[in-house]
Amino acid sequence: MSIEINKLKVNYKTLEEFKKFKEYGIQELSMSEDLEANIIENDSESPFYGIYFGDKLVARMSVYQVNAKYNRYFEPPVDYLEIWKLEVLPEYQGKGYGTALVEFAKGFKMPIKTNPRIKSRSFWEKMGFQSVNYDMDRDLGENPLIWHPDGVKEAKV
Amino acid sequence: MSIEINKLKVNYKTLEEFKKFKEYGIQELSMSEDLEANIIENDSESPFYGIYFGDKLVARMSVYQVNAKYNRYFEPPVDYLEIWKLEVLPEYQGKGYGTALVEFAKGFKMPIKTNPRIKSRSFWEKMGFQSVNYDMDRDLGENPLIWHPDGVKEAKV
Repeated sequence: MSIEINKLKVNYKTLEEFKKFKEYGIQELSMSEDLEANIIENDSESPFYGIYFGDKLVARMSVYQVNAKYNRYFEPPVDYLEIWKLEVLPEYQGKGYGTALVEFAKGFKMPIKTNPRIKSRSFWEKMGFQSVNYDMDRDLGENPLIWHPDGVKEAKV
Repeated sequence: MSIEINKLKVNYKTLEEFKKFKEYGIQELSMSEDLEANIIENDSESPFYGIYFGDKLVARMSVYQVNAKYNRYFEPPVDYLEIWKLEVLPEYQGKGYGTALVEFAKGFKMPIKTNPRIKSRSFWEKMGFQSVNYDMDRDLGENPLIWHPDGVKEAKV
Protein backbone atom coordinates (compact mmCIF):
# COMPACT_ATOMS: atom_id res chain seq x y z
CA MET A 1 0.00 0.00 0.00
CA SER A 2 1.48 3.35 -0.96
CA ILE A 3 1.60 6.14 1.60
CA GLU A 4 0.52 9.58 0.45
CA ILE A 5 2.45 12.62 1.66
CA ASN A 6 0.47 15.86 1.76
CA LYS A 7 1.79 19.40 2.00
CA LEU A 8 -0.28 20.85 4.86
CA LYS A 9 -2.04 24.19 4.52
CA VAL A 10 -2.47 26.50 7.49
CA ASN A 11 -6.12 26.37 8.48
CA TYR A 12 -8.18 25.84 11.61
CA LYS A 13 -8.58 22.11 10.97
CA THR A 14 -4.84 21.53 10.58
CA LEU A 15 -4.01 23.61 13.65
CA GLU A 16 -6.54 21.64 15.67
CA GLU A 17 -4.92 18.37 14.52
CA PHE A 18 -1.48 19.70 15.50
CA LYS A 19 -2.58 19.81 19.15
CA LYS A 20 -2.41 16.00 19.25
CA PHE A 21 1.33 16.04 18.63
CA LYS A 22 3.82 16.24 21.48
CA GLU A 23 6.12 18.72 19.81
CA TYR A 24 3.59 21.56 19.83
CA GLY A 25 5.30 24.87 20.51
CA ILE A 26 5.51 28.55 19.67
CA GLN A 27 5.67 27.79 15.95
CA GLU A 28 2.10 26.44 16.07
CA LEU A 29 0.93 29.17 18.46
CA SER A 30 2.35 31.79 16.12
CA MET A 31 0.54 30.20 13.13
CA SER A 32 -2.74 30.22 15.11
CA GLU A 33 -2.36 33.85 16.09
CA ASP A 34 -1.48 34.92 12.55
CA LEU A 35 -4.53 33.10 11.20
CA GLU A 36 -6.86 34.59 13.80
CA ALA A 37 -5.49 38.09 13.25
CA ASN A 38 -5.83 37.71 9.47
CA ILE A 39 -2.08 38.26 9.10
CA ILE A 40 -2.10 35.10 7.02
CA GLU A 41 -4.99 33.73 5.00
CA ASN A 42 -6.80 30.48 5.58
CA ASP A 43 -5.03 27.71 3.57
CA SER A 44 -1.71 29.58 3.43
CA GLU A 45 1.49 27.65 2.74
CA SER A 46 3.15 25.95 5.70
CA PRO A 47 6.47 24.13 6.14
CA PHE A 48 4.59 20.98 7.26
CA TYR A 49 4.04 17.73 5.43
CA GLY A 50 1.76 15.07 6.78
CA ILE A 51 0.08 11.70 6.35
CA TYR A 52 -3.65 11.17 6.85
CA PHE A 53 -5.40 8.01 7.97
CA GLY A 54 -8.92 8.62 6.73
CA ASP A 55 -9.38 12.32 7.50
CA LYS A 56 -7.18 12.21 10.59
CA LEU A 57 -3.62 13.60 10.54
CA VAL A 58 -1.45 10.83 12.03
CA ALA A 59 2.11 11.86 11.11
CA ARG A 60 3.85 15.10 10.30
CA MET A 61 7.20 16.81 9.84
CA SER A 62 8.39 20.33 9.20
CA VAL A 63 10.91 20.93 6.41
CA TYR A 64 12.69 24.19 5.64
CA GLN A 65 15.27 25.01 2.99
CA VAL A 66 18.17 26.76 4.71
CA ASN A 67 20.07 29.21 2.54
CA ALA A 68 23.64 28.23 1.63
CA LYS A 69 24.98 31.32 3.40
CA TYR A 70 23.96 29.79 6.74
CA ASN A 71 25.39 26.37 5.85
CA ARG A 72 27.93 25.32 8.50
CA TYR A 73 27.38 21.57 8.06
CA PHE A 74 28.08 20.60 4.45
CA GLU A 75 30.72 20.98 1.76
CA PRO A 76 30.33 22.44 -0.77
CA PRO A 77 28.17 25.04 1.06
CA VAL A 78 24.92 24.39 -0.81
CA ASP A 79 21.36 25.02 0.37
CA TYR A 80 20.23 22.24 2.69
CA LEU A 81 17.01 21.03 4.31
CA GLU A 82 16.32 21.17 8.02
CA ILE A 83 13.74 18.67 9.31
CA TRP A 84 12.08 19.12 12.68
CA LYS A 85 8.95 17.89 14.45
CA LEU A 86 8.98 14.54 12.68
CA GLU A 87 6.38 12.69 14.72
CA VAL A 88 3.95 9.82 14.28
CA LEU A 89 1.02 9.55 16.71
CA PRO A 90 1.65 6.60 19.08
CA GLU A 91 -1.12 4.31 17.84
CA TYR A 92 0.06 4.72 14.22
CA GLN A 93 3.74 3.94 14.78
CA GLY A 94 5.47 0.95 13.18
CA LYS A 95 3.61 1.31 9.88
CA GLY A 96 6.39 3.03 7.94
CA TYR A 97 4.92 6.55 8.17
CA GLY A 98 8.07 8.10 9.65
CA THR A 99 10.22 6.37 7.05
CA ALA A 100 7.93 7.58 4.26
CA LEU A 101 8.25 11.19 5.43
CA VAL A 102 12.06 11.04 5.61
CA GLU A 103 12.31 9.30 2.21
CA PHE A 104 10.10 12.05 0.80
CA ALA A 105 12.51 14.70 2.12
CA LYS A 106 15.50 12.81 0.68
CA GLY A 107 13.75 12.94 -2.69
CA PHE A 108 14.66 16.64 -2.95
CA LYS A 109 18.28 15.49 -3.44
CA MET A 110 19.62 18.05 -0.98
CA PRO A 111 21.62 17.42 2.18
CA ILE A 112 19.50 17.22 5.31
CA LYS A 113 20.14 18.17 8.93
CA THR A 114 17.97 17.35 11.92
CA ASN A 115 18.31 17.74 15.69
CA PRO A 116 16.19 14.88 16.98
CA ARG A 117 15.15 13.81 20.43
CA ILE A 118 17.89 11.54 21.67
CA LYS A 119 15.54 8.57 21.93
CA SER A 120 14.87 8.61 18.18
CA ARG A 121 18.55 8.13 17.26
CA SER A 122 18.21 4.50 16.14
CA PHE A 123 15.43 5.47 13.74
CA TRP A 124 17.57 8.16 12.14
CA GLU A 125 20.57 5.86 11.88
CA LYS A 126 18.40 3.31 10.08
CA MET A 127 17.53 6.12 7.67
CA GLY A 128 21.22 6.68 6.90
CA PHE A 129 21.77 9.73 9.09
CA GLN A 130 24.96 10.12 11.12
CA SER A 131 26.16 12.31 13.97
CA VAL A 132 28.18 15.39 13.08
CA ASN A 133 31.53 15.99 14.72
CA TYR A 134 30.35 18.09 17.65
CA ASP A 135 31.47 21.72 17.58
CA MET A 136 30.33 23.72 20.59
CA ASP A 137 30.46 27.10 18.89
CA ARG A 138 28.07 25.81 16.22
CA ASP A 139 26.07 23.07 17.92
CA LEU A 140 25.63 24.34 21.51
CA GLY A 141 22.96 22.06 23.02
CA GLU A 142 22.06 20.29 19.78
CA ASN A 143 22.71 16.68 18.79
CA PRO A 144 22.70 17.16 15.02
CA LEU A 145 22.37 14.28 12.62
CA ILE A 146 22.99 14.72 8.92
CA TRP A 147 22.43 12.92 5.65
CA HIS A 148 23.89 13.90 2.32
CA PRO A 149 23.46 12.81 -1.29
CA ASP A 150 26.48 11.94 -3.46
CA GLY A 151 28.70 14.91 -4.20
CA VAL A 152 28.19 16.57 -0.81
CA LYS A 153 30.07 15.76 2.39
CA GLU A 154 30.25 16.89 6.01
CA ALA A 155 32.02 20.22 6.47
CA LYS A 156 35.17 20.27 8.57
CA VAL A 157 34.80 22.26 11.78
CA MET B 1 21.83 27.99 53.34
CA SER B 2 23.80 29.36 50.42
CA ILE B 3 24.18 27.28 47.29
CA GLU B 4 27.63 27.07 45.77
CA ILE B 5 27.98 27.13 41.97
CA ASN B 6 31.10 25.40 40.62
CA LYS B 7 32.64 25.71 37.17
CA LEU B 8 33.08 22.08 36.13
CA LYS B 9 36.37 20.82 34.74
CA VAL B 10 36.49 18.08 32.12
CA ASN B 11 37.72 14.94 33.84
CA TYR B 12 36.70 11.31 34.17
CA LYS B 13 34.77 11.91 37.40
CA THR B 14 32.70 14.75 35.93
CA LEU B 15 31.97 12.81 32.75
CA GLU B 16 30.85 9.83 34.80
CA GLU B 17 28.50 12.11 36.80
CA PHE B 18 27.08 13.53 33.55
CA LYS B 19 25.71 10.07 32.66
CA LYS B 20 23.05 10.50 35.36
CA PHE B 21 21.51 13.44 33.52
CA LYS B 22 18.80 12.96 30.90
CA GLU B 23 20.20 15.46 28.46
CA TYR B 24 23.34 13.48 27.72
CA GLY B 25 24.29 13.76 24.06
CA ILE B 26 27.07 14.14 21.54
CA GLN B 27 28.54 17.08 23.45
CA GLU B 28 29.40 14.76 26.36
CA LEU B 29 30.48 11.93 24.05
CA SER B 30 32.78 14.33 22.24
CA MET B 31 34.29 15.51 25.55
CA SER B 32 34.87 11.87 26.59
CA GLU B 33 36.56 11.01 23.30
CA ASP B 34 38.75 14.10 23.39
CA LEU B 35 39.84 13.27 26.94
CA GLU B 36 40.59 9.63 26.11
CA ALA B 37 42.50 10.59 22.96
CA ASN B 38 44.51 13.19 24.89
CA ILE B 39 43.17 15.90 22.56
CA ILE B 40 42.23 17.77 25.71
CA GLU B 41 43.91 17.49 29.10
CA ASN B 42 42.37 16.20 32.29
CA ASP B 43 40.75 19.16 34.13
CA SER B 44 40.37 21.26 30.99
CA GLU B 45 37.84 24.09 30.91
CA SER B 46 34.24 23.18 30.13
CA PRO B 47 31.10 25.25 29.50
CA PHE B 48 29.36 23.52 32.43
CA TYR B 49 28.50 24.86 35.85
CA GLY B 50 27.15 22.62 38.57
CA ILE B 51 26.02 22.18 42.15
CA TYR B 52 27.29 19.40 44.42
CA PHE B 53 25.49 17.74 47.28
CA GLY B 54 28.37 16.26 49.22
CA ASP B 55 30.62 15.00 46.43
CA LYS B 56 27.73 14.18 44.11
CA LEU B 57 26.86 16.42 41.17
CA VAL B 58 23.10 17.05 41.45
CA ALA B 59 22.46 19.98 39.09
CA ARG B 60 24.18 21.39 36.05
CA MET B 61 23.85 23.77 33.11
CA SER B 62 25.93 24.66 30.09
CA VAL B 63 26.58 28.34 29.33
CA TYR B 64 28.24 29.74 26.23
CA GLN B 65 28.94 33.34 25.22
CA VAL B 66 27.67 33.80 21.66
CA ASN B 67 29.50 36.41 19.64
CA ALA B 68 27.54 39.56 18.77
CA LYS B 69 27.93 38.82 15.05
CA TYR B 70 25.60 35.82 15.46
CA ASN B 71 23.10 37.79 17.55
CA ARG B 72 19.65 37.61 15.92
CA TYR B 73 17.70 37.97 19.17
CA PHE B 74 18.68 41.21 20.90
CA GLU B 75 19.07 44.91 20.20
CA PRO B 76 21.61 46.38 20.30
CA PRO B 77 23.44 43.31 18.86
CA VAL B 78 25.69 42.61 21.84
CA ASP B 79 27.27 39.31 22.88
CA TYR B 80 24.74 37.14 24.68
CA LEU B 81 24.69 33.93 26.71
CA GLU B 82 23.09 30.70 25.55
CA ILE B 83 22.05 28.30 28.34
CA TRP B 84 21.33 24.65 27.62
CA LYS B 85 21.13 21.40 29.56
CA LEU B 86 19.89 23.09 32.72
CA GLU B 87 18.87 20.04 34.72
CA VAL B 88 18.45 19.06 38.36
CA LEU B 89 18.42 15.35 39.24
CA PRO B 90 14.84 14.32 40.16
CA GLU B 91 15.42 13.64 43.86
CA TYR B 92 17.07 17.06 44.31
CA GLN B 93 14.39 19.18 42.66
CA GLY B 94 12.40 21.82 44.54
CA LYS B 95 15.41 23.00 46.56
CA GLY B 96 16.19 26.09 44.50
CA TYR B 97 19.15 24.59 42.62
CA GLY B 98 17.75 25.41 39.16
CA THR B 99 16.93 28.94 40.28
CA ALA B 100 20.43 29.38 41.71
CA LEU B 101 22.02 28.34 38.40
CA VAL B 102 19.89 30.74 36.34
CA GLU B 103 20.48 33.61 38.81
CA PHE B 104 24.20 32.90 38.52
CA ALA B 105 23.98 33.24 34.72
CA LYS B 106 22.00 36.48 35.04
CA GLY B 107 24.84 37.80 37.20
CA PHE B 108 26.99 38.22 34.06
CA LYS B 109 24.61 41.10 33.12
CA MET B 110 24.29 39.88 29.54
CA PRO B 111 21.12 38.94 27.68
CA ILE B 112 20.34 35.23 27.79
CA LYS B 113 18.66 32.87 25.33
CA THR B 114 17.58 29.31 25.98
CA ASN B 115 15.59 26.70 24.06
CA PRO B 116 14.07 24.64 26.85
CA ARG B 117 11.99 21.51 26.87
CA ILE B 118 8.39 22.64 26.58
CA LYS B 119 7.49 21.23 29.98
CA SER B 120 9.92 23.55 31.77
CA ARG B 121 8.24 26.71 30.45
CA SER B 122 6.63 27.70 33.76
CA PHE B 123 10.01 27.54 35.51
CA TRP B 124 11.57 29.86 32.94
CA GLU B 125 8.67 32.29 33.11
CA LYS B 126 9.07 32.45 36.88
CA MET B 127 12.71 33.36 36.22
CA GLY B 128 11.61 36.32 34.05
CA PHE B 129 12.15 34.73 30.65
CA GLN B 130 9.66 35.30 27.82
CA SER B 131 8.95 33.74 24.44
CA VAL B 132 10.44 35.41 21.40
CA ASN B 133 8.23 36.35 18.48
CA TYR B 134 8.60 33.18 16.44
CA ASP B 135 10.47 33.59 13.16
CA MET B 136 10.74 30.39 11.14
CA ASP B 137 13.84 31.37 9.21
CA ARG B 138 15.67 31.92 12.51
CA ASP B 139 13.93 29.63 14.99
CA LEU B 140 13.03 26.52 12.91
CA GLY B 141 12.04 23.89 15.49
CA GLU B 142 13.12 25.88 18.54
CA ASN B 143 10.93 27.44 21.24
CA PRO B 144 13.33 30.16 22.34
CA LEU B 145 12.92 32.03 25.60
CA ILE B 146 14.92 35.15 26.35
CA TRP B 147 15.80 37.38 29.24
CA HIS B 148 17.55 40.72 28.99
CA PRO B 149 19.02 43.21 31.42
CA ASP B 150 18.09 46.91 31.26
CA GLY B 151 19.33 48.62 28.12
CA VAL B 152 18.82 45.61 25.85
CA LYS B 153 15.57 44.55 24.19
CA GLU B 154 14.26 41.87 21.86
CA ALA B 155 15.32 42.35 18.25
CA LYS B 156 12.57 42.88 15.67
CA VAL B 157 12.31 40.04 13.15
